Amino acid sequence: MNNTQHTSHQYNQELEAARSKLMTMGGLVETQVTDAIKALLERDSALGEKVSFSDYEINTMEVAIDEQCAEIIARRQPAASDLRLLLTIIKVITDLERIGDEAEKVGRYAVEMTETASYGDLHNSLRHLGEHVKAMLSDTLDALARLDVKQAMQVVSNDQQVDEEFDSITRQLYTRMLEDPRNIKDSLNVTWCARSMERIGDHCKNICEYVIYLVKGKDVRHTNLEKMRDEILGND
Amino acid sequence: MNNTQHTSHQYNQELEAARSKLMTMGGLVETQVTDAIKALLERDSALGEKVSFSDYEINTMEVAIDEQCAEIIARRQPAASDLRLLLTIIKVITDLERIGDEAEKVGRYAVEMTETASYGDLHNSLRHLGEHVKAMLSDTLDALARLDVKQAMQVVSNDQQVDEEFDSITRQLYTRMLEDPRNIKDSLNVTWCARSMERIGDHCKNICEYVIYLVKGKDVRHTNLEKMRDEILGND
Repeated sequence: MNNTQHTSHQYNQELEAARSKLMTMGGLVETQVTDAIKALLERDSALGEKVSFSDYEINTMEVAIDEQCAEIIARRQPAASDLRLLLTIIKVITDLERIGDEAEKVGRYAVEMTETASYGDLHNSLRHLGEHVKAMLSDTLDALARLDVKQAMQVVSNDQQVDEEFDSITRQLYTRMLEDPRNIKDSLNVTWCARSMERIGDHCKNICEYVIYLVKGKDVRHTNLEKMRDEILGND
Repeated sequence: MNNTQHTSHQYNQELEAARSKLMTMGGLVETQVTDAIKALLERDSALGEKVSFSDYEINTMEVAIDEQCAEIIARRQPAASDLRLLLTIIKVITDLERIGDEAEKVGRYAVEMTETASYGDLHNSLRHLGEHVKAMLSDTLDALARLDVKQAMQVVSNDQQVDEEFDSITRQLYTRMLEDPRNIKDSLNVTWCARSMERIGDHCKNICEYVIYLVKGKDVRHTNLEKMRDEILGND
């Protein structure tokens, strides 16, 4: 192997290492979200406690990946497409870290709410929202791993549904509070949890928009959904 | 002027242009936040409407600055310190854009809430929180323009106060809902507005942590405040 080949081999390994750390971070975040929602729905305060204290691992990874990408850019002066990949990773980890923050919050509420008598009808709605958000995150990580634009596009469309489910939970909570003021305190807690789940959906949408941008080279953020669909799917 | 000087002159101009666009975007976001809080407190639905429709300008700037920075990195292969500046700008604009989103939400609630009879005692608390958040954003933009680590450090400390003010408003709202269920609907709206303001504080904190990182080259994100203060101020 000559020197140039050697360098390019090392360079590819560095890029691959960054990408692989990103996916590991994604896996950690996914576990956090799954555990947080489980703790909330099954009133598992030990699990909620665990989630609310595991955030530091994700934070450490964010910082490490950030440094790693900046170093590759500085030392390797990557070509346009590699540079775009590295800049995308730098952006994606911010959203992943913030998903971890939201999971941590849900974990903390789960601990606080194990005393709550019952969520009543809300339990089903919360479960639905939880399932939906977990599927969104899983699809987001898939789209990211395979740089799959169509799947990313699907996640972006799904976010609207999550928003609607959140609105419906808010209306349910409102009725519940009106019916019996003793419900107000834990209804507010449920509101915060639902809000955190809805935020997780937002962050998934952000990540998928970065994936679309990376692959298609078009900035689809802030474009409306119709236009985006035309632009992305029309090209295929 | 020889060729190298010419190139370096152009390069500096490009860096300066990116930085200056960043500050323009910051100014726009500041106006949005000021107007949103004003619309809320003075029940000015026309102003609220204006805020809820001006978000696109900020979004367009985010995309433009993002592209501009990526292009400078690709074409100029900047030295480590310039690269760090460009990567910081890329991160800061994401938080600025999300501050714009929160302002837009407050604007929308302001329109919805012009019919609300009165915020009662809450008006003062909301005004305080609003003043606090506006000051934080203004200090953040100053710290960013002058790359002033001490001021950035100050903002990071202030965020805790904003969080406490938010908690106090939540307690007030809870009492208000308990006292009279007819208050529940608009109390929830006030809660969302307060939450958005608290989020704006969070984003200011993020931006200031990026500023500290840029200047000091230490990653202070996720470090606790005490340790951060020792690290930053101990070096001066």
